[in-house]
Amino acid sequence: MENLTVEQYEQLKEIADLALFSANNAWLLNATVLVFMMHLGFAMLEAGFVAPKNIINILFKNTMVICIGLLTYYLFGFGLMYPGDEYAGGFFGFGGFGANLPEGYNSLTYAKGNYTYWTEFIFQAMFAATAATIVSGAVAERIKLESFLIFTTFLVSICYPITGFWFWGQGWLAKLGFHDLAGSTMIHISGGTAALVMAVLLGPRHGKYNEDGTINQMYVNNLPFVAVGVFLLWFGWFGFNGGSVLSAAPETVSKVFAITALGGASGAIGALISAYARFKQYDLVMTLNGILGGLVAITAGADLLTPAAAIFIGFFFGLLVPYLVHMFDLIRIDDPVGATTVHLIGGLWGTMAVGIFTDVSFLVQLVGAICVFAFTLVFSFLIGYILLATLGLRVTVEKEEAGL
Amino acid sequence: MENLTVEQYEQLKEIADLALFSANNAWLLNATVLVFMMHLGFAMLEAGFVAPKNIINILFKNTMVICIGLLTYYLFGFGLMYPGDEYAGGFFGFGGFGANLPEGYNSLTYAKGNYTYWTEFIFQAMFAATAATIVSGAVAERIKLESFLIFTTFLVSICYPITGFWFWGQGWLAKLGFHDLAGSTMIHISGGTAALVMAVLLGPRHGKYNEDGTINQMYVNNLPFVAVGVFLLWFGWFGFNGGSVLSAAPETVSKVFAITALGGASGAIGALISAYARFKQYDLVMTLNGILGGLVAITAGADLLTPAAAIFIGFFFGLLVPYLVHMFDLIRIDDPVGATTVHLIGGLWGTMAVGIFTDVSFLVQLVGAICVFAFTLVFSFLIGYILLATLGLRVTVEKEEAGL
Amino acid sequence: MENLTVEQYEQLKEIADLALFSANNAWLLNATVLVFMMHLGFAMLEAGFVAPKNIINILFKNTMVICIGLLTYYLFGFGLMYPGDEYAGGFFGFGGFGANLPEGYNSLTYAKGNYTYWTEFIFQAMFAATAATIVSGAVAERIKLESFLIFTTFLVSICYPITGFWFWGQGWLAKLGFHDLAGSTMIHISGGTAALVMAVLLGPRHGKYNEDGTINQMYVNNLPFVAVGVFLLWFGWFGFNGGSVLSAAPETVSKVFAITALGGASGAIGALISAYARFKQYDLVMTLNGILGGLVAITAGADLLTPAAAIFIGFFFGLLVPYLVHMFDLIRIDDPVGATTVHLIGGLWGTMAVGIFTDVSFLVQLVGAICVFAFTLVFSFLIGYILLATLGLRVTVEKEEAGL
Repeated sequence: MENLTVEQYEQLKEIADLALFSANNAWLLNATVLVFMMHLGFAMLEAGFVAPKNIINILFKNTMVICIGLLTYYLFGFGLMYPGDEYAGGFFGFGGFGANLPEGYNSLTYAKGNYTYWTEFIFQAMFAATAATIVSGAVAERIKLESFLIFTTFLVSICYPITGFWFWGQGWLAKLGFHDLAGSTMIHISGGTAALVMAVLLGPRHGKYNEDGTINQMYVNNLPFVAVGVFLLWFGWFGFNGGSVLSAAPETVSKVFAITALGGASGAIGALISAYARFKQYDLVMTLNGILGGLVAITAGADLLTPAAAIFIGFFFGLLVPYLVHMFDLIRIDDPVGATTVHLIGGLWGTMAVGIFTDVSFLVQLVGAICVFAFTLVFSFLIGYILLATLGLRVTVEKEEAGL
Repeated sequence: MENLTVEQYEQLKEIADLALFSANNAWLLNATVLVFMMHLGFAMLEAGFVAPKNIINILFKNTMVICIGLLTYYLFGFGLMYPGDEYAGGFFGFGGFGANLPEGYNSLTYAKGNYTYWTEFIFQAMFAATAATIVSGAVAERIKLESFLIFTTFLVSICYPITGFWFWGQGWLAKLGFHDLAGSTMIHISGGTAALVMAVLLGPRHGKYNEDGTINQMYVNNLPFVAVGVFLLWFGWFGFNGGSVLSAAPETVSKVFAITALGGASGAIGALISAYARFKQYDLVMTLNGILGGLVAITAGADLLTPAAAIFIGFFFGLLVPYLVHMFDLIRIDDPVGATTVHLIGGLWGTMAVGIFTDVSFLVQLVGAICVFAFTLVFSFLIGYILLATLGLRVTVEKEEAGL
Repeated sequence: MENLTVEQYEQLKEIADLALFSANNAWLLNATVLVFMMHLGFAMLEAGFVAPKNIINILFKNTMVICIGLLTYYLFGFGLMYPGDEYAGGFFGFGGFGANLPEGYNSLTYAKGNYTYWTEFIFQAMFAATAATIVSGAVAERIKLESFLIFTTFLVSICYPITGFWFWGQGWLAKLGFHDLAGSTMIHISGGTAALVMAVLLGPRHGKYNEDGTINQMYVNNLPFVAVGVFLLWFGWFGFNGGSVLSAAPETVSKVFAITALGGASGAIGALISAYARFKQYDLVMTLNGILGGLVAITAGADLLTPAAAIFIGFFFGLLVPYLVHMFDLIRIDDPVGATTVHLIGGLWGTMAVGIFTDVSFLVQLVGAICVFAFTLVFSFLIGYILLATLGLRVTVEKEEAGL
């Protein structure tokens, strides 16, 4: 062949670069759509767990969470989470309001050609809203709508982006070597802690706990809704974990998919067995919660774990699920959908499992989990308490009994 | 290095070309699947809005629309919309029956290596069927099934492809510089106009409007179905808008995703606020319709708008939604699902917004919107009137009361 | 230009190779997620067909099938289906327990750079579980849960992988020139045969068939659930067929999508017409079953058929669906969801249609269909009979009447 001309070389390079860029970027956008579906999953899950009289209320809350979440994340959440430069030693930063192309922006160099600025924004915005959605199940059937929406707004747009910056925004946790692929800590401990705080501040639903220590099953769950919700969440989780690889790197994303499938499946089997041991019958609700628990638990390490480790992690946590749900009832923290168990405890176990089953430092994982827990606890308590003292958190007893 | 051999160069070029081609083509096919899901979204939305006695009827209609739509678009719709050459000055053309590979077809050159002939066919076929689906909500609970199916067939396979050819088939509107990324005009004004014509020809449901001017709320909506429908539509809209870029060009498709998310979210907030102002309560139905309205409104310009403009466009239209729905009731056009408001008025606003917020000519946008409206109006009226005069459009009063 | 350096050449080649690899691999993973959704589709379809008292039971069964299916396919199904080397003349082989990267594994050469080892595992695992799900509809409302789960485990992890190896694992059927893109035989005849065997061993539900030969309609179906199920299955089928191409090869995958859409649509029209001819009314259930029948029937040849042939194949089978469902009732094989008709007979027709409408040998197709049928028949009968003789297959009459 004649020598390659400069033009031929550059054209060839451009095609190859664009092809790789397009494949990577499309992967993240497809993942974004899957994560979007998780919002319908949460809506159906929670609609299935509440009394029929409260279904419209819970659908309304879930609809608002995604809408408010996307808009406030646009307004300042994104700027808080990806400030661009470090501030305050990697603890806090702010890159400005809105989503504005950084100066000198070049899409091919922005993220090594893996995704564009807009992809980063929209993928992260969908993620942010899931953290808030976790809360809505735990506070169902008694919270004032306005107070819930205000709380959600603060959580999505301030609390979550700050802790998110610590790790995903390359803050202090990232520098320590913390590992959390898709958010066992960043999403699930964060959302689960906020759920716990609000459930405690609210107190249990009227009629849930009797004086003599017994617990009332308040109504029959709508199990088709719960099942649809869990399947949609699992569906979305492939995007949640697969997209968090932040490229379509074949080896990693495919392994993440295998782990995500096996984690959910083994959580189901674990929960089925221990629920059978306890209640002497097959329990669909616990089995479905076991799937979610298994998924939360393999979320931190889906890129690093072996399949065998993932199966153990999911199965073991599945075994605990029925007992943990019961434990929260024993201490009279009323969480109608079991969100605290699945997300907070599952997220903690998933984060620590990375320290146990891979080379990542156990101690660093513990520090990360505790710090996100503590920050979210304090933040949620402050916002929750201010709401309690001003607007009030709970609807009246009459309204609670009539349905929201 | 030794000189590159011709073989090495060509092999390298082939891999790079195929990689880019595969990424682009896969993007469109994934978008096709998302658009397919919109048909389930419409089915659930409409099932949620009709009386329980008519749910089976509406599910049947929505099932038939996608099946008839795909088949008739194959038989001649595709040939009408993409005639290949101009005929009659870009107003009308026909490229033949069926979907046949063009002579001398080369997949790598067909669409600059962005997608294959089959991808173009199936993506466009899914789109075509959505225009017809818009009608089914507006005519619910009183139309004769046969008349509806015949009307649908004409709309999908003749009316929509002709106006579609004007712009997407590179007809006169395309040459004028009209801009409509994913069909605020081509799909939503088209479908919305047909819906309006048929709702007028049919007249309102019995018992909807009282002599004294008051309006009856005829039954309780099934809100979980409506919510599922809207979430599935939003899910599908990412494919609807994202696929309309016609390649996986990273910068454009990612911006389109961000705009699609923000448009729907801001529509919800707008509708929530104005419904609250009017009814003094939170209104889930209006909020969900606000999401759809926001989505329709950013569909024409999702590739050109800034996020701030998209938020304004969605929010502003959301504010109007409750008033527009009421307005149609005031003039006694009975549209059980609000399709005329969301699709026709939303599509008009979206088309004009491109003329306001971008460099595209306002006048050209107006011309495009009016011409598609006028053509569809006349076409729908003719077909509708012929059906009225022959088969009849409405079921008997007894049947309407008993349920379809 | 100066000569290309070795480094420049290799870097360029690496980018181009990785881009193509990423696009292909992502295609299969997206297909995997779509196939996952089929499990929710089956769950909703079957939940819509059973009596309300049995909905929880059927949801539980469908939840367990995917979980057990994924885990047992991991444990030994994958090793049976892809033994790596031939054993016993291509009839049976075993590559080891678990999913372990083969020695000397190189992701870029593993499958010609089309997908990774993990992608192959997880895509095939999702597939395997669908075969078992087919059974759960046919045995609904009377089978003992434990017996069903044990049967499922054997089917997914032993029977299906062995016949799968014959063709997909490059065993004797592959060498004969058998063609079955996505499993008209390998999935649908396999699952449909197991469904038939179990339905026969179980006998009909109490009260289904009267002494005088008439048949009782036992309850009203939940048609929204059935419709949701069918739409989700169609949605997933794009991944089922599209992913089976095993790369994102633009021409082939796009044609497969077009065929998959047209096959389902024409099946609906066929079933609508013949159900109308028989019952003188539009029948939503038959129309929806017609979609599934059409999809099963074009699954074997979706890559080879012309659109016209696909429409004929789907339409023709759609015409038969109402008669076949009735025929199974005449010989008192009680199959509450029509799975035997749709999957077994549809799969047979689809397999043979490849021999009729393409260049593939009719005889080889017949041999393949018969051998998979015969093997699955014997295997299912043995397992089913052992279960019958030990645990028992049926619940008590009281339990059947009270609901599972």
